[in-house]
Amino acid sequence: MAIDLEYDPHVVTLIEKTRAFTRDYVLPIEDKFVGNVADAGGDTCRVEMQAAAKDAGVFAPHAPVEYGGHGLNMSDRAPVFEEAGYSLFGPIALNLGAPDEGNVHLLAHVASAAQKEQFLAPLAHGDVRSAFAMTEPAPGVGSDPSALMTTATKVDGGWKIDGHKWFITGADGAGFFIVMARTSGKPGDRGGATMFLAPADTPGIRVGRHITTLDKAMIGGHCEVFFEGAFVPDENVLGAVDEGFTYAQVRLGPARMTHVMRWLGAARRGHDIAVAQVAKREGFGSVLGDLGMIQKMVADNEIDIAATRALLVQACWALDQGSKAGNETSIAKTFAAEAIFRIVDRGIQMCGGMGVSDDLPLARLSREVRPFRVYDGPSEVHRWAIAKRAVGAAKRAARDE
Amino acid sequence: MAIDLEYDPHVVTLIEKTRAFTRDYVLPIEDKFVGNVADAGGDTCRVEMQAAAKDAGVFAPHAPVEYGGHGLNMSDRAPVFEEAGYSLFGPIALNLGAPDEGNVHLLAHVASAAQKEQFLAPLAHGDVRSAFAMTEPAPGVGSDPSALMTTATKVDGGWKIDGHKWFITGADGAGFFIVMARTSGKPGDRGGATMFLAPADTPGIRVGRHITTLDKAMIGGHCEVFFEGAFVPDENVLGAVDEGFTYAQVRLGPARMTHVMRWLGAARRGHDIAVAQVAKREGFGSVLGDLGMIQKMVADNEIDIAATRALLVQACWALDQGSKAGNETSIAKTFAAEAIFRIVDRGIQMCGGMGVSDDLPLARLSREVRPFRVYDGPSEVHRWAIAKRAVGAAKRAARDE
Amino acid sequence: MAIDLEYDPHVVTLIEKTRAFTRDYVLPIEDKFVGNVADAGGDTCRVEMQAAAKDAGVFAPHAPVEYGGHGLNMSDRAPVFEEAGYSLFGPIALNLGAPDEGNVHLLAHVASAAQKEQFLAPLAHGDVRSAFAMTEPAPGVGSDPSALMTTATKVDGGWKIDGHKWFITGADGAGFFIVMARTSGKPGDRGGATMFLAPADTPGIRVGRHITTLDKAMIGGHCEVFFEGAFVPDENVLGAVDEGFTYAQVRLGPARMTHVMRWLGAARRGHDIAVAQVAKREGFGSVLGDLGMIQKMVADNEIDIAATRALLVQACWALDQGSKAGNETSIAKTFAAEAIFRIVDRGIQMCGGMGVSDDLPLARLSREVRPFRVYDGPSEVHRWAIAKRAVGAAKRAARDE
Amino acid sequence: MAIDLEYDPHVVTLIEKTRAFTRDYVLPIEDKFVGNVADAGGDTCRVEMQAAAKDAGVFAPHAPVEYGGHGLNMSDRAPVFEEAGYSLFGPIALNLGAPDEGNVHLLAHVASAAQKEQFLAPLAHGDVRSAFAMTEPAPGVGSDPSALMTTATKVDGGWKIDGHKWFITGADGAGFFIVMARTSGKPGDRGGATMFLAPADTPGIRVGRHITTLDKAMIGGHCEVFFEGAFVPDENVLGAVDEGFTYAQVRLGPARMTHVMRWLGAARRGHDIAVAQVAKREGFGSVLGDLGMIQKMVADNEIDIAATRALLVQACWALDQGSKAGNETSIAKTFAAEAIFRIVDRGIQMCGGMGVSDDLPLARLSREVRPFRVYDGPSEVHRWAIAKRAVGAAKRAARDE
Repeated sequence: MAIDLEYDPHVVTLIEKTRAFTRDYVLPIEDKFVGNVADAGGDTCRVEMQAAAKDAGVFAPHAPVEYGGHGLNMSDRAPVFEEAGYSLFGPIALNLGAPDEGNVHLLAHVASAAQKEQFLAPLAHGDVRSAFAMTEPAPGVGSDPSALMTTATKVDGGWKIDGHKWFITGADGAGFFIVMARTSGKPGDRGGATMFLAPADTPGIRVGRHITTLDKAMIGGHCEVFFEGAFVPDENVLGAVDEGFTYAQVRLGPARMTHVMRWLGAARRGHDIAVAQVAKREGFGSVLGDLGMIQKMVADNEIDIAATRALLVQACWALDQGSKAGNETSIAKTFAAEAIFRIVDRGIQMCGGMGVSDDLPLARLSREVRPFRVYDGPSEVHRWAIAKRAVGAAKRAARDE
Repeated sequence: MAIDLEYDPHVVTLIEKTRAFTRDYVLPIEDKFVGNVADAGGDTCRVEMQAAAKDAGVFAPHAPVEYGGHGLNMSDRAPVFEEAGYSLFGPIALNLGAPDEGNVHLLAHVASAAQKEQFLAPLAHGDVRSAFAMTEPAPGVGSDPSALMTTATKVDGGWKIDGHKWFITGADGAGFFIVMARTSGKPGDRGGATMFLAPADTPGIRVGRHITTLDKAMIGGHCEVFFEGAFVPDENVLGAVDEGFTYAQVRLGPARMTHVMRWLGAARRGHDIAVAQVAKREGFGSVLGDLGMIQKMVADNEIDIAATRALLVQACWALDQGSKAGNETSIAKTFAAEAIFRIVDRGIQMCGGMGVSDDLPLARLSREVRPFRVYDGPSEVHRWAIAKRAVGAAKRAARDE
Repeated sequence: MAIDLEYDPHVVTLIEKTRAFTRDYVLPIEDKFVGNVADAGGDTCRVEMQAAAKDAGVFAPHAPVEYGGHGLNMSDRAPVFEEAGYSLFGPIALNLGAPDEGNVHLLAHVASAAQKEQFLAPLAHGDVRSAFAMTEPAPGVGSDPSALMTTATKVDGGWKIDGHKWFITGADGAGFFIVMARTSGKPGDRGGATMFLAPADTPGIRVGRHITTLDKAMIGGHCEVFFEGAFVPDENVLGAVDEGFTYAQVRLGPARMTHVMRWLGAARRGHDIAVAQVAKREGFGSVLGDLGMIQKMVADNEIDIAATRALLVQACWALDQGSKAGNETSIAKTFAAEAIFRIVDRGIQMCGGMGVSDDLPLARLSREVRPFRVYDGPSEVHRWAIAKRAVGAAKRAARDE
Repeated sequence: MAIDLEYDPHVVTLIEKTRAFTRDYVLPIEDKFVGNVADAGGDTCRVEMQAAAKDAGVFAPHAPVEYGGHGLNMSDRAPVFEEAGYSLFGPIALNLGAPDEGNVHLLAHVASAAQKEQFLAPLAHGDVRSAFAMTEPAPGVGSDPSALMTTATKVDGGWKIDGHKWFITGADGAGFFIVMARTSGKPGDRGGATMFLAPADTPGIRVGRHITTLDKAMIGGHCEVFFEGAFVPDENVLGAVDEGFTYAQVRLGPARMTHVMRWLGAARRGHDIAVAQVAKREGFGSVLGDLGMIQKMVADNEIDIAATRALLVQACWALDQGSKAGNETSIAKTFAAEAIFRIVDRGIQMCGGMGVSDDLPLARLSREVRPFRVYDGPSEVHRWAIAKRAVGAAKRAARDE
């Protein structure tokens, strides 16, 4: 019981193995998809990479040991996920990408034994992919959870789901959905939501178009999904009825942090590439990397990387102590999403024309990381939540005086 | 002779006609190319749009009157080009896109009568496109002009050009090239460059691959171009031998500013779209556009737009007075390239998920404007030049004391 | 009627004379007050400097010609005031400091002939100073004008004023006050305010403490002022009853801009000093001013200066056309207040230990300019106003479709 | 051996006692010195406060237990020093202010037993103050250690020191100096420096003027100190001859971090005051703290505080492991110095007119924290060092390929 920042030797080993696997095996595969990282190579590529990850002993570091994973807590996931994120394809190869990784986390904490067998086990092993069907087009649920419009109506033996979701990551090709639907109340009410487990082949579930976005590397895309009288049996209610947002919290904080871990890895790759370039290119009578304005960008990247990592350590430790860590994860996510974008953007600038071209991966990385300032809560919503806590505490303190 | 910022009525009319033409005619065409703005629709689309622009009386506002243009000076170009830039396809439709517009400017100032007839006339009329072949892969000429490696060797009746250029905008499909080649000295020397006019079908000129970049909307791409013993006759020397960089200055300042004008139009479109979104979308019990954090982004965009426009006015006026305006154009370009990116980036953030998707043009615009912080001199190189002047002046002042 | 940015020769002459007077005569006086610029030397110093300014033909460039000034419009004031602002004592020496300059402007536009004789004439000639008594402690009027609490009650032959003002610049030693007081309605109503001209020796007017602030150079301080049944005769109503905020607008836009002009001069001085330092100091094997990170600061300062000046030109011209120019002046003020602070702050950083010490004027300048981001409307209030206009226009456009 | 961020209970107790002592006892004393924090109340006030701190059991948390302190390592100092820094007078009260705290650290690691008895013991107990005499006026030693000009010449039985130091914090009233002087080589050489322990009453040592700076609260000021043939006996050489810079490293990293800890406390106080203000003040129909632009500032402060603290944790732990932690401490110091300034600056902005006045401590705090971006290595020098490491590693990696 004193400050200790040293990882256990078995974690250190896993970090190193993950680094080697990502750089030696995964990156060359990603590089073959230049100009077309859409879908991260698709499921064929995924299955092949995941088999290799199992052979290398690096598969599913976060999944429970009984489901073939390494059972790492949040603190230990941070450096491992960062290494996997060094390639855009790494998270898929190690089965720790969004949304599957968050769904594994959620199911491990909330699912019944039977649900675990039916849904968690194949997901953890990489036999299927999944999707988390929450977001709806305006005026539906987005940053403001109370706006939920999709309904689940009680019918004999189960529930009938109707609604329109979009930006459902990984929907195309998912084996099942975790669907958030309203079981009581009306849009504007904060409660009344329930989570359902719905196999993708359920009649009345239809995956629509891929919404094309700046980022391309998410397997299964960001899709529209239509629920048209889709029947889900009672045993597929995840947790208790009307408690959906409570469980969403279980997933939310950790999922924010694992996003940060992965994108930090991507940002570091961008930084490494840019530093390697300026360390060898010459101009104005000097190696570029010895020029002050370039040094400033290099240093600012190093600072942003260190601060992101340091905030991750704090937030993950709070989560591991059992806290919801709403403030810690909002702070870390907001800082990280902006820092990660800056890091890659500076990397582009350091590389000039090469930086904006596909001759280096920087332009691609910048497209991939930009949406993170919007996904998982826009920076503005997190700042609002952070400020509400601080100002609210000050209001209470003033009242108590 | 007193400060006056009012445009002449004929300019006001042209601004209004250009606004109407761009929004009513061009934007709908651009919108048909969503997800594939590559090449801005290609030459078929270009020819059709340019015919319509001629009918509308808005074609080639910058070209000399005797070549079918409106003969506007730099000050008057600013608001007209900004309106044309409101669509990514607008500059092509009005024949005022890069690099053709800068080449028209250069030829109008430097070309001989015969050269004007052969090269300027068809270019100004939109009968052909052109390219400016300067940039070379490292360690060749990029930000540092003294690094020029392409050579022009004197032969009987002309010159033989050898070299490798890249990032040559508009090369694919260009009717001719303005080629910068070394006629004396060696890489590292600041002088010794000459400009040549080379028809694209000259034996020994080969257009290579399109370098794929974040921006897609440049007609004719950013290409590699190989000069392999290409013969150019003496009468195709543009200006005097060994004076290439002097003439490049003629093109450089104005070309920087017309880039700013066009991209400012694009940024304003992004801003307008984002403001329209937040003015109608609701969340957190309010119209989004009435929330303080959104208001901050809106206001910062308004400030960035106003400051960019104000710096343009200053720099254009200096150019119109006959100054090279190296400092004014460096300042305006550097500020503008960063401001324009911020404007579009904030627009994305205001629109959330829609902002990063192709359901709105913001994501596309952000890709198009990002490289401007690199093209036409990276911000770092402009800052270096600006500082050199200021510190140099202070050194001289200290010596003179 | 075409863009023209050239000043009339008589303005150019006045700019040059003002530059020479400020640097040769005023700066040496300011420098004697190092460590104690409080009150800018006081009225003895002021009277002496103003006499010299009259001799030099640079006194009161903004005041009407019939009151001994040069009668410059806003556009022409910009470069002249900037030169005067190069010394913190310059605006006082030339009688163009706040709040007197704004009061001259207001009286010239709104006062009756008799009021002009009694109040404007001695103010324009520097025989007296004045103060503008508007701001009140919370919950009174600050950024939100509707909060006005000071009352003026109709009595026989005049009005009785009661209220508590603070941050009243120049109050200590002022010859008269322009007082904003409520003549109808109640706090929360937007109208019902009236302006009164009140000689300082009016019974019932009491100047309280100087509020000590970061800035020190305002003559007469920022004071609390108490109105305790102060009687003002009817003929001292400035303009019409209940129209006080309308007249405040007359003063507001121009006063914002003249603040910018003066502080821009101060910022330029800070920049010049810092550039002179880095142009001569050495470290790390180089003149500091040739190091990239220093060059970045120098260039960013040059950009901020140019953009501030360019926005001033735009806003002043709009004011000269008779527009209230609410948006233009808000944009220019917000950008300028932040840019000016950045310029001085970078200057400090360039000079290191000297920069934070009184061995150079930079630390002093940074204290003087910081409050400008709060005074004359905090940046947040201006941004709110700017955004309201933009979002409001978008709402109306949506309704009209 | 796994991540643990929990403080030992005895540290938690000391944190809480320090918080209570600082807020309940020290802050009221500081508040009595409003408008005149110069010298932090002087030595009379210091002695009184230190006696109280001893009574409260919070004195000298960092000093070795055998010299009356609590013997905390760097990790445990962080939260304790932050609490002490909540008042500008706190560090003096607890005897953990600069430069004494760093000197205690240095002497504890490097001094001989006799030196500890003579110099460390009275310093740790608060019986005397001390100063670290390193910095010289240009062109002497500042950011670049090789520029050291002060010389120590070998004489019989000791050394004769000659030189001119400035910005020597705490010099006025110090009991002894640790002097850095050149014992071999010449300015421009990186080695050849030696540290000497010199009682302040040594003939030939003269404390000159206080250099007035933005910050005022350092007891003993920032002074010029002249060494004019001052004799120091051999036994007062601290460590080995010519190894001065090696020992300086021992002091440097930890001293940077304890600065951050203290200033972070000051920034938090500024933030707390500002949040309390906006939580109670109203305007524009709302509590200010519920307005979006204010919320953004509150949230950005929370993020900056969290990131600073998180980087401190990382750097302190590295120091505790025995690393010099040059990169970690440079990163933490650079980020912290800029973040701390931003925090206080936003606090000012949140409080408007009150913020720039002495009616709240924010203006005072902003003056105190600004120089930290210069002291202990300007941000530019740290960024240069950070980039040198990163680019250097990339160069080596390229060579090794």
